Amino acid sequence: MAITIALDCMGGDHGVRVTVPAAIDFLEREPDVSIILVGLVDAIETELRRHGAHVHERLSIKGASQVVAMDDPPAQALRGKRDSSMRVAADLVKEQVADACVSAGNTGALMAISRFVLKMLPGIERPAIASFLPKIQGRVCVLDLGANVDCTAEHLVQFAVMGSCLVSAVDGIERPSIGLLNIGEEEIKGNDVVKDAAELLRASELNFSGNVEGTDIYMGATDVIVCDGFVGNVALKTSEGLAQMLAQYLREEFGRNLFTKLCGLVALPVINHFRNRVDHRRYNGASLLGLRGIVVKSHGAADAYAFGFAIRRAYEEARHGMLTSIGEKMAAIQKTAA
Amino acid sequence: MAITIALDCMGGDHGVRVTVPAAIDFLEREPDVSIILVGLVDAIETELRRHGAHVHERLSIKGASQVVAMDDPPAQALRGKRDSSMRVAADLVKEQVADACVSAGNTGALMAISRFVLKMLPGIERPAIASFLPKIQGRVCVLDLGANVDCTAEHLVQFAVMGSCLVSAVDGIERPSIGLLNIGEEEIKGNDVVKDAAELLRASELNFSGNVEGTDIYMGATDVIVCDGFVGNVALKTSEGLAQMLAQYLREEFGRNLFTKLCGLVALPVINHFRNRVDHRRYNGASLLGLRGIVVKSHGAADAYAFGFAIRRAYEEARHGMLTSIGEKMAAIQKTAA
Repeated sequence: MAITIALDCMGGDHGVRVTVPAAIDFLEREPDVSIILVGLVDAIETELRRHGAHVHERLSIKGASQVVAMDDPPAQALRGKRDSSMRVAADLVKEQVADACVSAGNTGALMAISRFVLKMLPGIERPAIASFLPKIQGRVCVLDLGANVDCTAEHLVQFAVMGSCLVSAVDGIERPSIGLLNIGEEEIKGNDVVKDAAELLRASELNFSGNVEGTDIYMGATDVIVCDGFVGNVALKTSEGLAQMLAQYLREEFGRNLFTKLCGLVALPVINHFRNRVDHRRYNGASLLGLRGIVVKSHGAADAYAFGFAIRRAYEEARHGMLTSIGEKMAAIQKTAA
Repeated sequence: MAITIALDCMGGDHGVRVTVPAAIDFLEREPDVSIILVGLVDAIETELRRHGAHVHERLSIKGASQVVAMDDPPAQALRGKRDSSMRVAADLVKEQVADACVSAGNTGALMAISRFVLKMLPGIERPAIASFLPKIQGRVCVLDLGANVDCTAEHLVQFAVMGSCLVSAVDGIERPSIGLLNIGEEEIKGNDVVKDAAELLRASELNFSGNVEGTDIYMGATDVIVCDGFVGNVALKTSEGLAQMLAQYLREEFGRNLFTKLCGLVALPVINHFRNRVDHRRYNGASLLGLRGIVVKSHGAADAYAFGFAIRRAYEEARHGMLTSIGEKMAAIQKTAA
């Protein structure tokens, strides 16, 4: 099955410098994919030439005259820039010209534009941001990571449905296990929203494993962890900060003097292997779930290697029919609830 | 100024095996401290003998016939075990026989007992759990770490006052800078509680630095970070999980084969130095703030080395008159607000 992906080429800190080479590379790896490069035609063509590449059957350009800036307020990006590369990429998904779109642009704007252009899936009230994180064995899908600062128990259940479908689609797990992020594993713990969500999840057809704690994001066994966007965002960014600090400490320790530098040289292959294993670029690509279309958000600072993983996420969601699967599961849940 | 500390010797996973040797060691280091060992007299005396130690002018035993189990519900610990080592230690603080108490027991029970026995400071509605975490330079005091799952803006301001006084007392910083944990630095971000808290903090006499993100716990510049207990607990436990996973990965990489094992041997001094630097035992000891008495909670799994840091926290809070300082700052805040 051929998949077409629309790329917002202008988004992110590096724009075409990152998005265009990532697209060229991705097409070489995946023969059943077509990519539409969306953005300022001149900039895209210049970048293609820099790589000795040109448009062909599977690589086309769709002009868009405006660019959403990283600090544009969502409302302004939505109403004031109707010909932005972000908007045009979403339009291509809406018109079913593309099966998915990917952008490294401003999250708030991407969320507002996607929601306006694509609308929500039936039964889903709020979009959620989902991403995969490494864990002690395999990986875990965590959502919401910041789209929703206040959630009801019903929202958390919808997140569980969406996360479950994402993991099924991307990792091929039939009934992903779901953990509810709380501050203790006992049922009496947590605030009312979390307690109510646990009750709804237990009654649902989902494979609910109960409450999990922050530790379980990296050390736990569940395939999906559900939380409100405030908590999820803090957990994600706290992890980023801790990883940065530890990396800095390691550099300092190995750079302390000639002896420690020599130790570092000897241990380099091991350290590099470790570094590759925890390379956050391999986890780049957050899915905006709940929309009637596949939208993947890349980290704004992503390089071409990292951006390639975001394209891959979009590709896999499209290839495995994630949207249909969310729709079916939501219908089943609502039938149970009724 | 001589300080007396009451130790709940029975709490934690290891009880007297950890608490008694930690007390003996602490007394050797600090000549102006007295310690009261609270718990089952036989168990304490046996453990003292094991270390060739005995009671003396600065080391006494106070018998308590009951032990709060790690899984006792708080209400049961409070009402059903009135002669528990935890309760008697808190009573000694209430009666001003001790300046502070330390327990490695069940957090919920310690919170309930402390609140019942000691009562709250004027102007503080809820106790908070505060702990220090390492950051890229120095350390940061984060609260609340799990005592309060639902907070109002006013609670967050009270946490800011308490965290500020704790840092002043323990780290000698005159006007600690305070960050409000949010999901973006812009003022428009976050939920209503956080937005209202920011407004109150800006209007207060505290040294408020504005919103901070999860990343800033480890990479930021503020001395204190304030958040509700649900978010704080998730951030803390997520960090624990990530650190465990990274340590496990490192072990696996260095244990892969003979060559990597040799690399590990060569790099051992550097790795050990790194490990000491991030040793979580050095950050053991969470302060239960807002009470009319100093109460420090040690991690339940702490060993004697880690438990010693919890005793030190209690000692420093008492020595620097933290309680008076919280009282004065709350009075000043309420004057501004009125």
